[in-house]
Amino acid sequence: MSTINSQDDEDTFKILIATDIHLGYLEKDPVRGNDTFVTFNEILDHAQKNEVDFVLLGGDLFHDNKPSRKTLHSCLESLRKYCMGDRPIQFEILSDQAVNFHYSKFPWVNYQDGNLNISIPVFSIHGNHDDPTGADALCALDILSCAGLLNHFGRSASVEKIDISPILLRKGRTKIALYGLGAIPDERLYRMFVNKQVTMLRPKEDEDSWFNLFVIHQNRSKHGATNYIPEQFLDDFINLVVWGHEHECKIAPYQNEQQRFYVSQPGSSVVTSLSPGEAVKKHIGLLHVKGKKMKMQKIALETVRTFHMEDIVLADHPDLFNPDNPKVTQAIQAFCMEKVELMLDNAERQRLGNPRQPEKPLIRLRVDYAGGFEPFNVHRFSQKYMDRVANPKDIIYFFRHREQKVKNDNDLNFGKLVSRPTAEGMTLRVEDLVKQYFQTAEKKVQLSLLTERGMGEAVQEFVDKEEKDAIEELVKFQLEKTQRFLKERRTDAEEEKIDEEVRKFRESRKENTEEEDEEVREAMTRARAHRSEDPVLVAASSDEELMDTGMRDTGDSDDGLPATVRRGRGWARGRARGARGQNSTARGSSRRGRGSTSQESATSSRTYKPVSVPAKNMSIMDGRLSICSLL
Amino acid sequence: MSTINSQDDEDTFKILIATDIHLGYLEKDPVRGNDTFVTFNEILDHAQKNEVDFVLLGGDLFHDNKPSRKTLHSCLESLRKYCMGDRPIQFEILSDQAVNFHYSKFPWVNYQDGNLNISIPVFSIHGNHDDPTGADALCALDILSCAGLLNHFGRSASVEKIDISPILLRKGRTKIALYGLGAIPDERLYRMFVNKQVTMLRPKEDEDSWFNLFVIHQNRSKHGATNYIPEQFLDDFINLVVWGHEHECKIAPYQNEQQRFYVSQPGSSVVTSLSPGEAVKKHIGLLHVKGKKMKMQKIALETVRTFHMEDIVLADHPDLFNPDNPKVTQAIQAFCMEKVELMLDNAERQRLGNPRQPEKPLIRLRVDYAGGFEPFNVHRFSQKYMDRVANPKDIIYFFRHREQKVKNDNDLNFGKLVSRPTAEGMTLRVEDLVKQYFQTAEKKVQLSLLTERGMGEAVQEFVDKEEKDAIEELVKFQLEKTQRFLKERRTDAEEEKIDEEVRKFRESRKENTEEEDEEVREAMTRARAHRSEDPVLVAASSDEELMDTGMRDTGDSDDGLPATVRRGRGWARGRARGARGQNSTARGSSRRGRGSTSQESATSSRTYKPVSVPAKNMSIMDGRLSICSLL
Repeated sequence: MSTINSQDDEDTFKILIATDIHLGYLEKDPVRGNDTFVTFNEILDHAQKNEVDFVLLGGDLFHDNKPSRKTLHSCLESLRKYCMGDRPIQFEILSDQAVNFHYSKFPWVNYQDGNLNISIPVFSIHGNHDDPTGADALCALDILSCAGLLNHFGRSASVEKIDISPILLRKGRTKIALYGLGAIPDERLYRMFVNKQVTMLRPKEDEDSWFNLFVIHQNRSKHGATNYIPEQFLDDFINLVVWGHEHECKIAPYQNEQQRFYVSQPGSSVVTSLSPGEAVKKHIGLLHVKGKKMKMQKIALETVRTFHMEDIVLADHPDLFNPDNPKVTQAIQAFCMEKVELMLDNAERQRLGNPRQPEKPLIRLRVDYAGGFEPFNVHRFSQKYMDRVANPKDIIYFFRHREQKVKNDNDLNFGKLVSRPTAEGMTLRVEDLVKQYFQTAEKKVQLSLLTERGMGEAVQEFVDKEEKDAIEELVKFQLEKTQRFLKERRTDAEEEKIDEEVRKFRESRKENTEEEDEEVREAMTRARAHRSEDPVLVAASSDEELMDTGMRDTGDSDDGLPATVRRGRGWARGRARGARGQNSTARGSSRRGRGSTSQESATSSRTYKPVSVPAKNMSIMDGRLSICSLL
Repeated sequence: MSTINSQDDEDTFKILIATDIHLGYLEKDPVRGNDTFVTFNEILDHAQKNEVDFVLLGGDLFHDNKPSRKTLHSCLESLRKYCMGDRPIQFEILSDQAVNFHYSKFPWVNYQDGNLNISIPVFSIHGNHDDPTGADALCALDILSCAGLLNHFGRSASVEKIDISPILLRKGRTKIALYGLGAIPDERLYRMFVNKQVTMLRPKEDEDSWFNLFVIHQNRSKHGATNYIPEQFLDDFINLVVWGHEHECKIAPYQNEQQRFYVSQPGSSVVTSLSPGEAVKKHIGLLHVKGKKMKMQKIALETVRTFHMEDIVLADHPDLFNPDNPKVTQAIQAFCMEKVELMLDNAERQRLGNPRQPEKPLIRLRVDYAGGFEPFNVHRFSQKYMDRVANPKDIIYFFRHREQKVKNDNDLNFGKLVSRPTAEGMTLRVEDLVKQYFQTAEKKVQLSLLTERGMGEAVQEFVDKEEKDAIEELVKFQLEKTQRFLKERRTDAEEEKIDEEVRKFRESRKENTEEEDEEVREAMTRARAHRSEDPVLVAASSDEELMDTGMRDTGDSDDGLPATVRRGRGWARGRARGARGQNSTARGSSRRGRGSTSQESATSSRTYKPVSVPAKNMSIMDGRLSICSLL
């Protein structure tokens, strides 16, 4: 009911909240290459200076599913530098750690390992960018976890049914039940929620005495009917949801009117798309929890490259621009230049004085040229800003929307724009490319055994996750499946008949897309299980890259909203198994045998991130696909 | 002069010696995939059981320059499991660690880091498989080093001149100067030795009181005139050389007659080629050093998959095989089957009873079919051994050498073979493929600006090290170079003239291969320096994969040869800078600022490993190269 005292005391948890750090994003860009590493260090520095109890990350610590050596190296360096040391940890873990960290080879929290001197434990779920993939079903976070520098939690053991066991933490008289759910394709998770297959387990003892904190990495804004997770799906016994994945900073806890829990959306710590949501100032949070009260303190990040965005609608300036004037293009160009200069002045003023903040800002001027105007040469315009702007090549974005049908006015609140520019943020999906190829290709290169759908997904996996075996596995599986079918039909006789049967088989599968969904998933699972006995799944991708171009609410300017916590209605209440509130003992030092709770027999969920492959890197020729980054 | 007492005492260093562990070799093979991980664990287990002071590795801990996530994860797991713990370290480091580990972000030995509880420090140089590459000039060992689980040393700061500063170790009254030199292309290192550009620095104080131990990873056997490092190049003040890279186990120290130092060649711990050298039993060494005396104790590895090899010369059995007999092929096949059965029996008898030793052996039967015989269908033969042999597809190897010219009889001592089979062990080099392609291609697809040579190296880098920018960088560089040339000739006028000049320019470069060598190297260096100010070099590759097929001495059966150490003649004696015998203090725990001895301004050596790309993965079409592992 009342604001808690932010002053440190032995009953107050101090937790640093951040998400979507995207280490390695644009790491090869000569200007922006170091941005993510610099800001990660700033975040950990805040954790250290604020003497937090732990750091909680909401996924996408890494931008690439298979981070480069440099990215991995930098990340390990930062964690070792900031998170090791002599400061004692002041909270304990009451839950069964073998359950909480069941996927790890060292299934206990790092700070209780006698061989590691951890000063700041980091807890993280995985995002869609750094989710577990491959026959080994490992993700990049597992490397950090195996090195003892991070605690990866929130992995689900099944893909059909999810039981979330919380990590139970206690500091003095405050008890936190920390629930985590690593990224899962939204459509699948949506279905699981609808089918009541998601259960949040609750401790048996003193059920109401816990502060229930849930960290999740999914679409929060609606992308299609089932391609996001509505807040009302979540249990209302939760007190605070930390929502990762969405890049716009809305970190101040926002109360869900129906369910009364609060949602904090920290947003990314780096701008990964030149969209309005990313222009909102970046923050991380210092969350105080005492008893069942909480306070979220916003911390402005000082090393984030500033991003400035403006829109011009040429038709709004009949006094300045006349489409019939032969010199109108020069006039527009001069006007834009003036605008950019003003934005650059503004950017300079807004710099925070942190010597680590990059100098060159990101600038985006969107020009609506509807009304008979022509776009000017962007290339030449860009040249002028090579030395002053971090993104010279895409400063200007031309679009026309006046002609477009206006809809969903209520969803939009950014500048003068009333609908999302059509082309911006569109990414090419390899899956679609493959489909298109086979649809337009001549008969002779058409697939006869494989399905375009399965092929598309496998190629997507190949490109997106650098999953080199995906295609081979799919081919093997679909071949075997066809062979089984033929065997059942006993058509091992004449060749013509076989062709006929194969055609039939293919036709029968085309009709049933749901079945094929299952099949493709099974293909990946089986082919891998074959090798490693570690079934993993494949599912359809979501259009996550589009997310950031959507116009969303920016009503998050309130600072440190104090909030009181209530118990909610509680649907899908848990059965509290595996979370029995038993005391943990500090795990000893050396000579610990490897337990049998290895990963080898476990299953995992696998998700896809959407593909944004530049078209030039994908060429289709001679009936073979070749994906090369040559020349 | 006398054998040292192997009994532990406070003056005796116990060092576990191993090399070429090749973690991740064939990791996707359903049968052999885990071999390297199992044996690495065995090696570390020996280290633990023998309570060694430290582990010394001679390079190629990883098979791939960019190890898979699984491999990295397994390696971290093993190191954390076996090398962390409470057993105190009983030796100290006297040299300047900032010099010894100058490339590391944490330039001190891991066991002195107050945040890590290390029980067995591991010291390693890099091999040609896991050498530093890329704009960041990092290697896989640096990941381990950054995680605090390994001490990577022996990196040279320059590519023209090498000063090797030893790590100076003291245990009681024994002092070891540990010299390391990570893999460098043999040709280049050979040249540097000849030009007296390799200097081994020596401590000023009590120069003669040190046991000088040198670990190196180069060709030891001669491959062409300058494509190896002759032992006589090495300083004779050295007491023991641990020689990595060569896979045949010749671990018992062998004394160089001229220079009096000893050479121990541990050999690989996994069979990576089906060649005679790899059929020699695998060992690691337990090296005892007390004062200037040493003893090498061989430890047989029990988890290595056994490898059995035999040769048949059909023409040697005129009683059995008559080429004119229409059923001779069946007779040969039956004979081979009998042989394989005997080999399998033999393999079964030789298994050591270690439950972790893989059951299925590697079997290779080489059949010389010279004399009018025909090879039989190997595929069908293989099918019979799918369940009993680890390498069913290549059990049989047919060759003909009777017709070949016999030479170098003295070099050979394996079985009845008198010359190396021509095709076996040959690997396809991408460089050669590229060259061949452009030489045979029609005029229209020939390169006009780029050189085939440079292109070949860049493509090799691309394939071999997954260095995705190599090609782009080369193109950029060669383009710029041509532009500069044209500018100098002031040919910015007519197009025809430009074509003519470009042709001239290309011709002029073709004549001078040495200059082009430099150019290609410069291309990589400059293009990268552009981005990261971190110049790295590219050099020609060596034929390392061929190495193991050569017939070499197997006179290494003596066990634990005791050896006395003498001071040698000492050419290229060092200037002893950077190794001043100063006392190190145990480095404290937390809040250590990152020093300015970062990698950013340093140069590094880069080496190539030879390419063995299956031809099917490389297709050349439409004048474009496409390297795909599709279908």
